[in-house]
Amino acid sequence: MSRLTEVSANRSFGGWHKQFEFDSQSLNGKTRFAIYLPPSATAETPVPVLYWLSGLTCTDENFMQKAGAHRAAAELGIAIVAPDTSPRGEGAANADQYDLGQGAGFYLDASQQPWAEHFRMESFIVDELRQIVEESFPVTGERFISGHSMGGHGALVLSLRHPGLYQSVSAFSPICNPVNVPWGIGAFTAYLGEEQNLWASHDASELMRASQPEQHCPTLVSQGLADQFLEEQLHPHALVSAAEQSGYPLTLEQHEGYDHSYYFIASFIEQHLRFHHAQR
Amino acid sequence: MSRLTEVSANRSFGGWHKQFEFDSQSLNGKTRFAIYLPPSATAETPVPVLYWLSGLTCTDENFMQKAGAHRAAAELGIAIVAPDTSPRGEGAANADQYDLGQGAGFYLDASQQPWAEHFRMESFIVDELRQIVEESFPVTGERFISGHSMGGHGALVLSLRHPGLYQSVSAFSPICNPVNVPWGIGAFTAYLGEEQNLWASHDASELMRASQPEQHCPTLVSQGLADQFLEEQLHPHALVSAAEQSGYPLTLEQHEGYDHSYYFIASFIEQHLRFHHAQR
Repeated sequence: MSRLTEVSANRSFGGWHKQFEFDSQSLNGKTRFAIYLPPSATAETPVPVLYWLSGLTCTDENFMQKAGAHRAAAELGIAIVAPDTSPRGEGAANADQYDLGQGAGFYLDASQQPWAEHFRMESFIVDELRQIVEESFPVTGERFISGHSMGGHGALVLSLRHPGLYQSVSAFSPICNPVNVPWGIGAFTAYLGEEQNLWASHDASELMRASQPEQHCPTLVSQGLADQFLEEQLHPHALVSAAEQSGYPLTLEQHEGYDHSYYFIASFIEQHLRFHHAQR
Repeated sequence: MSRLTEVSANRSFGGWHKQFEFDSQSLNGKTRFAIYLPPSATAETPVPVLYWLSGLTCTDENFMQKAGAHRAAAELGIAIVAPDTSPRGEGAANADQYDLGQGAGFYLDASQQPWAEHFRMESFIVDELRQIVEESFPVTGERFISGHSMGGHGALVLSLRHPGLYQSVSAFSPICNPVNVPWGIGAFTAYLGEEQNLWASHDASELMRASQPEQHCPTLVSQGLADQFLEEQLHPHALVSAAEQSGYPLTLEQHEGYDHSYYFIASFIEQHLRFHHAQR
């Protein structure tokens, strides 16, 4: 664990919640992530790991503090890793917007300036963080991925772009078709440039529509029907239509009265953890 | 509900988390509280209510967002009310300290200036908020009380000072003997004055030591043994000694490795809710 500096440690449901910092090559600077290790995780009995990708403005803390996920993770024996949502600090570029720059990495590798030097969240999640987690903690090579909103987009897209890396994927209130909504258009223009034909390879619905059987991965999406961003930003109907066209194994569950908040995530996170656990 | 203004509403575990504001007579100004209503709470089937008193620096939000309590409350059919921890705003006095003034009401009625005009948290909790909750929501007259740290002190003291009002009391990491620790000495000096013989009637250990059978109320206290405030501020041994002297029905559970954070509360809140539910 020599590259990692422990920032905090809290006992939780018999296991441990810990935060670590390290110098990331992908992000070209220091980054922090959190891990929940269930009580059953030992060198002799490693556990599978769920990567949780948070939404706009979040850090590693939002999910760990608000989702109430430790109880089911402790029971099922699943580790959870929550990275930050972007590079941070003075070195990294920023924008005066909540939906671009720091806190809004969109889980892709930016090709455009001033972002390209630090904003390489895709490489960070699928390569660097994965390797450091698997070297440092008692986890197996079984990986699940999930996330919320911008992080739901990230979970869907990273799973589609890296077939075989994750055994299952889930998302709460994901941005399903970023090339067609304001959050996605703003971020993709800044990070990937004006050429819109390059955007499709980072769009969950476009990737799913064109997906081949080897990219198919059991996928559960939960969406609240009182979500304040549903109409303008999320577009789950585009994902459903794409899955129908390619025969992709997508389940969309819609929940009357639930909004975009962590109260929605908390209400259904146990179901998502059990879904992932059942795919092993 | 005419006195109440709804500030927010989130569906959670089939029930509702809501925040309300109203003009409080006790606090001499506007205050906000949160309520969790389980799905079973209807006018025909009212439910008991747990009052949760938070710790230093908290508002109504910390417990609702971080304790993961809604799941068990929904299952057991218990409403939860979380008030703010003090009066707020420009009208109320403040201090340049995290442990005095706004965010640090200590659940007592201050007798000293500049606090006495607004800092009347005891009257607020036991009379005004209770009445408004019982008039406005589908709850029975069955009341439980619990809290964390300064709020654990509040739960213990309000139960001892108002026999019969609460059917059971519990606390996480409470300040057990404030007259003997820095947090308590600072707050009691400011709110109650220099005369220390007036302090005992707001000290859980002193009240418990002198308690009569009619004040006895089933009480569960949970304390983490890695709590950073245990030695200097909390003193559960004083509470245990007081309970032994008066035959008070106190159970203290000590948990190896747990700290003062909400991860500790989240790990054991279900046990506390089941404890209260079993006292009905």
